[in-house]
Amino acid sequence: MVRPVPHPTPDAVSDAPLRAFVGYQMKRAFNAVQADLGRTLEPFGLRMLTYSALALIVENPGLRPSQLAQALAVERANVVVYVDQLEEAGWVTRAPAPGDRRAYALRCTLAGRRLYARAQKAVQAHDDRLLSGLSADEAAIVRKALAQMEQRT
Amino acid sequence: MVRPVPHPTPDAVSDAPLRAFVGYQMKRAFNAVQADLGRTLEPFGLRMLTYSALALIVENPGLRPSQLAQALAVERANVVVYVDQLEEAGWVTRAPAPGDRRAYALRCTLAGRRLYARAQKAVQAHDDRLLSGLSADEAAIVRKALAQMEQRT
Repeated sequence: MVRPVPHPTPDAVSDAPLRAFVGYQMKRAFNAVQADLGRTLEPFGLRMLTYSALALIVENPGLRPSQLAQALAVERANVVVYVDQLEEAGWVTRAPAPGDRRAYALRCTLAGRRLYARAQKAVQAHDDRLLSGLSADEAAIVRKALAQMEQRT
Repeated sequence: MVRPVPHPTPDAVSDAPLRAFVGYQMKRAFNAVQADLGRTLEPFGLRMLTYSALALIVENPGLRPSQLAQALAVERANVVVYVDQLEEAGWVTRAPAPGDRRAYALRCTLAGRRLYARAQKAVQAHDDRLLSGLSADEAAIVRKALAQMEQRT
């Protein structure tokens, strides 16, 4: 049997014990960045992962879906969904992969490359805002810290 | 009809156009941090979101699930799942909320507070590793940049 709690409902919820963690600050910052990126890409009919997939296919013509999955750190099944979306929009084509009849190679169409070029400019402007107000030295420290977190943890 | 691609399969996939973005570096760093946090919490039977929920319930006794959902920035339906897990483990209790028969208030059991105290130490050690090697000034710059990203974007 559970007694009614003696405490009133908190008016303002304190997340102080989580706020103290750099990891939690990072999660909150990344959520905000991801939301802003979503708003940036929406007019192009892209989302974070379809944009990333498009960028990797532009940069690596002939890429296999398995390589794309690895580079994006997502499940192979999810990559197929993104590639389907990009193909349906006419931005990416699947072609038989040389030397492996079961695999296929991805490449961008002209429309895909043009869309990517426009979206890339918008993403660059979004990304430039993230560290705006910081000096070049400060921005370099933030980038160094992020690289260290990726490698050390 | 699609011709076979003239390009060989890339041996090493280049993500250079994405690496240039701070937002992408942040995503990769956050993925690594999240994986390390998962390994840190696993021995306690907790995951990132159940740990966060436990921390907020310890700090805010009488918390309503709707407040917890808002503080964690997750859907109400998902919060119910986390609370169920915490309740089944004997760490959290639901009690009738004073003045609202349809709602309920969350609080921690003694076992929950004890588990939280142990997990909190492990999470602190994990978090301390994230900025290790940086000077106090550099760490302050990183925290300032993360706060700015959360607020400005």
